[in-house]
Amino acid sequence: MDLFVAEGEKNVSELLDSDLIKESVFSTKKTRYKSFKIDIDEMKSISFLKTPSSVLGVFRIPKSSIEINDNEIIIALDSIKDPGNLGTIIRLCDWYGVRQILCSEDSVDCFNPKVVQSSMGSIARVNCLYLNLEEYLKNTSRDVYGACLNGDSIYKTILDSSGVYIFGSESFGISNSINKYIKKPLTIPLFNNNSKIDSLNIASANAIFLSEIFRNKLN
Amino acid sequence: MDLFVAEGEKNVSELLDSDLIKESVFSTKKTRYKSFKIDIDEMKSISFLKTPSSVLGVFRIPKSSIEINDNEIIIALDSIKDPGNLGTIIRLCDWYGVRQILCSEDSVDCFNPKVVQSSMGSIARVNCLYLNLEEYLKNTSRDVYGACLNGDSIYKTILDSSGVYIFGSESFGISNSINKYIKKPLTIPLFNNNSKIDSLNIASANAIFLSEIFRNKLN
Repeated sequence: MDLFVAEGEKNVSELLDSDLIKESVFSTKKTRYKSFKIDIDEMKSISFLKTPSSVLGVFRIPKSSIEINDNEIIIALDSIKDPGNLGTIIRLCDWYGVRQILCSEDSVDCFNPKVVQSSMGSIARVNCLYLNLEEYLKNTSRDVYGACLNGDSIYKTILDSSGVYIFGSESFGISNSINKYIKKPLTIPLFNNNSKIDSLNIASANAIFLSEIFRNKLN
Repeated sequence: MDLFVAEGEKNVSELLDSDLIKESVFSTKKTRYKSFKIDIDEMKSISFLKTPSSVLGVFRIPKSSIEINDNEIIIALDSIKDPGNLGTIIRLCDWYGVRQILCSEDSVDCFNPKVVQSSMGSIARVNCLYLNLEEYLKNTSRDVYGACLNGDSIYKTILDSSGVYIFGSESFGISNSINKYIKKPLTIPLFNNNSKIDSLNIASANAIFLSEIFRNKLN
């Protein structure tokens, strides 16, 4: 049985309200749910945080759905390494109703405590599937978009809300083996001509893409 | 003379190419610019990072401009505490050409090494001014927008690109003393009706706001 750890009152409380199965919750103070009372030193010894919060929950890792829903948008992450970035992307996907994220096998584990921390409960509602991304892209018939440096402006392209959108790693962007499957390279245009900035943080780029894909979908 | 530290090849290289004044650069390997060669253990002892990079630069903190340009957009941050978030927002502002950020006096210092790290060189081009935000808002005649939970949809509002846009702290949102000056509360609508998510990360929200403010400004 594989387990993961979530910390923080809000985070744990959201996961307790989800479909996830709780193994145990530890707390330094009274909680509205069943928990083991421990003292601050004990919490420090089990917490992954520099400044532990009052609550730490242990949950079962759910079985990842292996079915990919081919009618829904897919966010694909190629070698994402930073747990804070993955957590933030999971939260953004939850916000915009994206339910499936494909991660290349060398990406950071979505049940890493720091990912769970920054996803703020959204990990219970967004399915992260780890797979050979190249194999998947080779066999899909869907529109494959990529967040690139020299693509078409996202503000001037019709963005299909059932497409596959690929984001590359923090340091190296999209790898060559993945890049060749991109049919529509897309770019967030740089508005500041005086700047030497050449890329945005991957979670920032993901936020802007999701906003642009979904902004016209509201009634 | 006040100094700050920047780490990482790309980061230091960008700052060396900027108007900032370099004090000294330390490196564990040869660099294209003048640097003091040190070994990995010495780098570990001066670095703020868990996994130090090969280059660490020390720069002078520039004099913050105290003039606020009243014709340009302002991003105002109320009690932002997370250095990674502030750095990401500085980078986003640089991307969209926003040159002035007002921070409440209790916000994290923009020359904190972690802020410098995640701003990736943009700290040289974006001016962060620390001030009594309440006093500023009391006296400004500009349109004051706030990122709130129950405002008008950003997708259905004309967003003035010379307005003041306020973002609240990670834990508590916009404080009451600031909230009363907001003339136009705005919200990124939640697209996922099945989700219990109640807010986005402040840097994600900032990314989506900036994209929405500037998307129509391109030729």
